[in-house]
Amino acid sequence: MTAKVTSKANQILIWKTLIFAVTLTWGATPFRKTLISVEENIWVENWEIKLKDVLGADVAGEVRKSVLRGGKQDGVDVVRVHNGRLGFEVIPTRGMSVRRVEMGKMRLAWDSPVKETVHPKFMDLGSRGGLGWLEGFNEWMVRCGLEWAGHPGSDEFISNTGDKATMELSLHGKIGNIPASEAMIIIDDDPPHRIRIRGRVDERMFYGPQLELRTEISTEPGSNEFRISDTITNVGTNMQEFQIIYHCNYGSPLLEAGSHFLVPVRTVSPFNENAARGIDSYRTYRGPTHGFIEQVYLIEPLADATGHTTIMLTNSPGDRGAVMNWSLAELPYLTQWKNTADLKAGYVTGLEPGTGYPYNRRTERKFGRVPKLNPGESRSFTIDFALLDRQADVTAAAAAIQKIQGRRGPEIKKIPLYLGEE
Amino acid sequence: MTAKVTSKANQILIWKTLIFAVTLTWGATPFRKTLISVEENIWVENWEIKLKDVLGADVAGEVRKSVLRGGKQDGVDVVRVHNGRLGFEVIPTRGMSVRRVEMGKMRLAWDSPVKETVHPKFMDLGSRGGLGWLEGFNEWMVRCGLEWAGHPGSDEFISNTGDKATMELSLHGKIGNIPASEAMIIIDDDPPHRIRIRGRVDERMFYGPQLELRTEISTEPGSNEFRISDTITNVGTNMQEFQIIYHCNYGSPLLEAGSHFLVPVRTVSPFNENAARGIDSYRTYRGPTHGFIEQVYLIEPLADATGHTTIMLTNSPGDRGAVMNWSLAELPYLTQWKNTADLKAGYVTGLEPGTGYPYNRRTERKFGRVPKLNPGESRSFTIDFALLDRQADVTAAAAAIQKIQGRRGPEIKKIPLYLGEE
Amino acid sequence: MTAKVTSKANQILIWKTLIFAVTLTWGATPFRKTLISVEENIWVENWEIKLKDVLGADVAGEVRKSVLRGGKQDGVDVVRVHNGRLGFEVIPTRGMSVRRVEMGKMRLAWDSPVKETVHPKFMDLGSRGGLGWLEGFNEWMVRCGLEWAGHPGSDEFISNTGDKATMELSLHGKIGNIPASEAMIIIDDDPPHRIRIRGRVDERMFYGPQLELRTEISTEPGSNEFRISDTITNVGTNMQEFQIIYHCNYGSPLLEAGSHFLVPVRTVSPFNENAARGIDSYRTYRGPTHGFIEQVYLIEPLADATGHTTIMLTNSPGDRGAVMNWSLAELPYLTQWKNTADLKAGYVTGLEPGTGYPYNRRTERKFGRVPKLNPGESRSFTIDFALLDRQADVTAAAAAIQKIQGRRGPEIKKIPLYLGEE
Repeated sequence: MTAKVTSKANQILIWKTLIFAVTLTWGATPFRKTLISVEENIWVENWEIKLKDVLGADVAGEVRKSVLRGGKQDGVDVVRVHNGRLGFEVIPTRGMSVRRVEMGKMRLAWDSPVKETVHPKFMDLGSRGGLGWLEGFNEWMVRCGLEWAGHPGSDEFISNTGDKATMELSLHGKIGNIPASEAMIIIDDDPPHRIRIRGRVDERMFYGPQLELRTEISTEPGSNEFRISDTITNVGTNMQEFQIIYHCNYGSPLLEAGSHFLVPVRTVSPFNENAARGIDSYRTYRGPTHGFIEQVYLIEPLADATGHTTIMLTNSPGDRGAVMNWSLAELPYLTQWKNTADLKAGYVTGLEPGTGYPYNRRTERKFGRVPKLNPGESRSFTIDFALLDRQADVTAAAAAIQKIQGRRGPEIKKIPLYLGEE
Repeated sequence: MTAKVTSKANQILIWKTLIFAVTLTWGATPFRKTLISVEENIWVENWEIKLKDVLGADVAGEVRKSVLRGGKQDGVDVVRVHNGRLGFEVIPTRGMSVRRVEMGKMRLAWDSPVKETVHPKFMDLGSRGGLGWLEGFNEWMVRCGLEWAGHPGSDEFISNTGDKATMELSLHGKIGNIPASEAMIIIDDDPPHRIRIRGRVDERMFYGPQLELRTEISTEPGSNEFRISDTITNVGTNMQEFQIIYHCNYGSPLLEAGSHFLVPVRTVSPFNENAARGIDSYRTYRGPTHGFIEQVYLIEPLADATGHTTIMLTNSPGDRGAVMNWSLAELPYLTQWKNTADLKAGYVTGLEPGTGYPYNRRTERKFGRVPKLNPGESRSFTIDFALLDRQADVTAAAAAIQKIQGRRGPEIKKIPLYLGEE
Repeated sequence: MTAKVTSKANQILIWKTLIFAVTLTWGATPFRKTLISVEENIWVENWEIKLKDVLGADVAGEVRKSVLRGGKQDGVDVVRVHNGRLGFEVIPTRGMSVRRVEMGKMRLAWDSPVKETVHPKFMDLGSRGGLGWLEGFNEWMVRCGLEWAGHPGSDEFISNTGDKATMELSLHGKIGNIPASEAMIIIDDDPPHRIRIRGRVDERMFYGPQLELRTEISTEPGSNEFRISDTITNVGTNMQEFQIIYHCNYGSPLLEAGSHFLVPVRTVSPFNENAARGIDSYRTYRGPTHGFIEQVYLIEPLADATGHTTIMLTNSPGDRGAVMNWSLAELPYLTQWKNTADLKAGYVTGLEPGTGYPYNRRTERKFGRVPKLNPGESRSFTIDFALLDRQADVTAAAAAIQKIQGRRGPEIKKIPLYLGEE
């Protein structure tokens, strides 16, 4: 089906004019392609471009937009970005989640028992006592948020009459199951020719939160790195709480028996009693283990001089690693989710920077971990990712993490951070 | 995508035969175009017709069917009817709601924080304690109903075993989020060449209500008026309660500081304590006001000699007005919803004729405002709307409303109509 | 819209190779056509084939794939299989349910007040106190299951932490509202040239059941018989409860005043007090009866020497009948649902072989009627159906059923099988 493009001619005219103006002013103009825009009524079903056609014959890679069909994936938009070395797959239909990342033999992904990329039209977040989110959970990176991000259960909210009311929060919030209202590809004409997919996801309602997520997921030709850069804005007229947790999920083969989790730690606490029993080995991983019960650790990382922290997950030999780097001013908390269950049950670990931990919002609020945005106010979050496939690079990254830790011994708490009803 | 039309050839043959028969009998035949029919498996993706091609070269205007794409509006059908002077936009996918009306510089519409015309597949009416409806609320006119129309909360219903059972009602019912099973354009060949969009929305289930809404929204070439004409039928075999409230929502620029609400009133009561505090000024409006808490007034209007009432919302200078006229035998109650909040939060007033008020159905039932339909029985509702853009017309309409009021002083109640738990 | 077929060329190549290999090895190769495959990203919008083009000029019949449009049926896939004498309609989008069966003047179907074949995207199973399923209920055969199959209400489940938790079960489970992830047509090249539609429906989630339904619904050219053959597999890593009930629903004209239900009975019990009052006449049917309250009877059938039971519903003269035959080792229980209400309210009887009865799962578990599957374990279920349109055939089938009953008098219980809260 060809997208119905009401005012495409006008849009092209506007773009051409803008591009012309920008060219006169700044020099080179980026390549742009709008894939989804509710304002322009644009939806592109299938599209692709080779980087060589934009950046020159010596540049490998491509960007490709397609649609999934059949079953619960029917109608799901997929955008694949490949920089010639590293590729990732973004799902606009599921809140601009990242389905998987691949580079050579490395992949950031896991094998969830949920096989299809589930369209939100088939989801019922409130089902199963608020655990409906688990029927669609299989992405490498899915955001939890924005109105709430943690575990299900009752919480208060302020109704339109200014009164306190009660509602049931569902697991990990709604943003991962809201289709993007805007998606666009941008390829910089200027070196290093960054390749960007931008999207906008609206979590808005009448008499409720009006939160807007703008994300850019980007990489450079030939790079082993990519970046997720988000801005959350309160477009409403009242002060608004929000939460975000980047639920990044690593599975086999990077995760294996003997995998290491390297992180500069100020404090680490178990989420609950079960996690408390395993806290001495939170930095190492078991192989697939039948009957394994999830263990969750709550970490306050340490930062380097720029305020950034770096963490890494390595394979057992230590010749492959996935590195994450971000500012603790933006995302001060880190949740480690160990779920080294059977391969078929979902053998996976989540490394999850956030504005808080995944307790229910009422608990997070109690501990002061639910930030607020004034009307019109924004908060930005950037995470840089690198895939390392050489021992020397892994060793160097490990040294850098160790350097952040320095002499500050990690404070390892044996008692769950919160023991109340959760 | 071209609609799959199983038996279109047969259908055309039937139409041609019918048209021929009708022509012989009655003379002129109307133009007809089926846009949606579940019985015929017809769905037209895009279509348009100029009135001049049907009614002659001197008639401006058109009818246009399109589909929205992207985000939460993906797949939403839109039908725009323009009579050469006044245009309106009907959304079959959202229960034949009217998204907006425009005439020159006037518009009947408001700026909801919900920007997209949300497809029901993304709605979850039961979420947020039954307030999920608010995630799609942005139409100028959306019907509340049909099984229930008011506020959320528990109510009894009779189960298939004849026993009383309890269910949670969700805000304003389901009809505004049910896609139409039938939509058709009709243009009368006979003067005044009325242009009609007809639709059927089914609120049916097994062991439950079987209510059918047939609506016709129509206008005449060059007119400043249009009409909503609905029939609700109990197609089931048991007596069935029903409710309908026409939630007509007026925003800027017609609504502004100093706008007036003209209405012939027998009694007016506040909905709750907050409304009670503002009842002396229920007929006038403030400008956008940060932190404004909604005020709702419950009105028994007065009728003219034909049993009809007329109400009007004017702008501040009184040179523009929106007029509504209907039979009190059909819709005896009128709810006024004042929500003069920030422009971005939804600066709007609802003028809402109904079979009752928007309390929860259990309360409405207690006060005798929940009508019933016998098996096969129908009730019809017609509201005439006019957009006035000249001071003289506004003044004349105001005089007509004043004439209905006559010497019967409005009874203004200071105490909420119902003070129980709502 | 043409389906987007990512790797169709590859797929065809693989098929051709396989077919070639099979031809060499076994002789004749079946005709195959994939209609839906999430793995291959195949979805065929419209397709049809005449049996004569596959099996030779003397073979009537066809297979046809189409899509419904408009209203709540928008996007529903339909596959019609006609063997030249008998036709049936399978709905991949609704869990491979069978919408209707037709043979000459006979039909297996009923007239539900739900007219459209409702797309799951419009369903909310949890609504109406867990009765949302009834908004889509109109198939001749819909499966209830797989995680649970009975009446709504709370039940325990084991959460991912190994703890007991509570959830609300919804009426008849989810499988009938999950779209098939795979659908394929197979026509045997070898006599008797069986025509098969195969499908796979996944009821999977993370931290929950991972149950897979593989179904084959098949018939032979010119036959008055067809077969439903299902396999349910626990593809998860933990032991998993499951339930399945084949909710086969017969309406007019086969069901009429004086219709007979023939069944070899070990015991029959009423479901509740209302059914208890009518148990003496459970084998006969009334005509459409205003105000009729459903009566449900719970039957342990008797088997023949092969372990199979045979049941039949006949019309009043006894010259037409629908026969069902299955193994009691597979489906030991049979539920009879009498709902001889008004024609427009749904005049229907359900004859429902199952792994249990339709009480809530907590009750079924208490009575030992909730089977479990080990990881990787499967259970298969086959039901053979025949449509009889000659008195002699009906008489012969009745005799066969009587022979199974033999001298073992049915034990008719007057007290409901379970009197606790349901």
